Amino acid sequence: MLVKSKLKYIQSLGQKKFRQQEPVFVAEGPKLVNELIAMENPGIIEIFALKNWIEENKSVADKLNVQEISTIELEKISHLTTPNQVLALVKKFETSDEITVKNKITLALDNIQDPGNMGTIIRIADWYGIDQIICNAQSADIYNTKVIQSTMGSICRVQVHYTTLSNWLSKQKGIPVYAAMLNGEDVTSINKITEGILVIGNEAKGISDEVLASVTTKITIPQKGKAESLNAAVATGIILSHIV
Amino acid sequence: MLVKSKLKYIQSLGQKKFRQQEPVFVAEGPKLVNELIAMENPGIIEIFALKNWIEENKSVADKLNVQEISTIELEKISHLTTPNQVLALVKKFETSDEITVKNKITLALDNIQDPGNMGTIIRIADWYGIDQIICNAQSADIYNTKVIQSTMGSICRVQVHYTTLSNWLSKQKGIPVYAAMLNGEDVTSINKITEGILVIGNEAKGISDEVLASVTTKITIPQKGKAESLNAAVATGIILSHIV
Repeated sequence: MLVKSKLKYIQSLGQKKFRQQEPVFVAEGPKLVNELIAMENPGIIEIFALKNWIEENKSVADKLNVQEISTIELEKISHLTTPNQVLALVKKFETSDEITVKNKITLALDNIQDPGNMGTIIRIADWYGIDQIICNAQSADIYNTKVIQSTMGSICRVQVHYTTLSNWLSKQKGIPVYAAMLNGEDVTSINKITEGILVIGNEAKGISDEVLASVTTKITIPQKGKAESLNAAVATGIILSHIV
Repeated sequence: MLVKSKLKYIQSLGQKKFRQQEPVFVAEGPKLVNELIAMENPGIIEIFALKNWIEENKSVADKLNVQEISTIELEKISHLTTPNQVLALVKKFETSDEITVKNKITLALDNIQDPGNMGTIIRIADWYGIDQIICNAQSADIYNTKVIQSTMGSICRVQVHYTTLSNWLSKQKGIPVYAAMLNGEDVTSINKITEGILVIGNEAKGISDEVLASVTTKITIPQKGKAESLNAAVATGIILSHIV
């Protein structure tokens, strides 16, 4: 039996206001929870799972704080439209204060608003071996359910930092800063890079003027048809596939 | 005043069951509705709009069947979480019976389930000048609100055909059929093409065996990090950016 106070607490984490005050987030579904369990420092506080998940994961479940719940209880606490066997309360990830941009590729997100885009971009970063993303403070919250779920586990491997992006960028002297724009160098003829920051702009407004001031190379994905733009996550994937 | 029967009718189009029986679909928001209006044969049956949209689009609104409604009425009929000024009832697009695959690139979707992915893929196709997509019948319904909205207007320029994909593919003799897979030729070293069919598989299961039987070239996006896979729409964008 799930106590009422815990049920209410987990439900409240669906709201950004409460989630921002708390040091924890909610992760759901076998894929994500099992990826979290497999991490070096998983930070799992408590797991709420159906009987079948517990039986299938007996060896790990025995070592963790797992509570068996009913399907009805899972439906009540789940933040998903289709609850999926298991829900974990997890400590928010710690991010290092020092961000190193030397000898690596870093993504910078200038106000990505859509949680699905944010999650998909984290997954793309992980695919291309990029382990850090810098966002400005107004970007989508990575602990939003939709973000967490659409990273498909990549949230465990990519550090996301929130800061004042334009300020931070202006301090990265000597590091090339690339930006996805509608007018710039053709991405299909740009040389591969091993060091640099790639800036992706807001879905509707693109890159802000303050951020643009630090950009050293504008990159364009050539348009052959009539769509006005590409989705921000798709553009990120295309550019990385050509420059990494 | 919106009559109750019309209000109920528009609401019912939010359900797949009713939408499939009716020859119309719902399009919302100024961007999409204005793109529809700009089409050669827009097929707009009726527009329901707030006063400000009608005033801003006076020249076109005068020629169309436009009914002014209140914000509360728009909230009632809208299929969006955030209703946006205008909603149009539109005749479903006619697709030609003859599908020509000669001298062009065609996308084939093997059971894409997520409406957001379907819409984003239509938008990517439009960006790369691809004007037809063949889907198997189980793929996401293009008249689903989420699909329509995430195409950002590209639904007006890309024909989507539903058929038995494996049957259809097996009849396309002499046309190269490419497939996005986890093991295949590196996309970054494949030559550009001007004719062929690119198959994108289901989000979780990939490409089915029946469809795979017609594939002539498997393509892989090289993975540099640890994510298990890429989002289907992102993979579509990456592959097209290298082969178109």
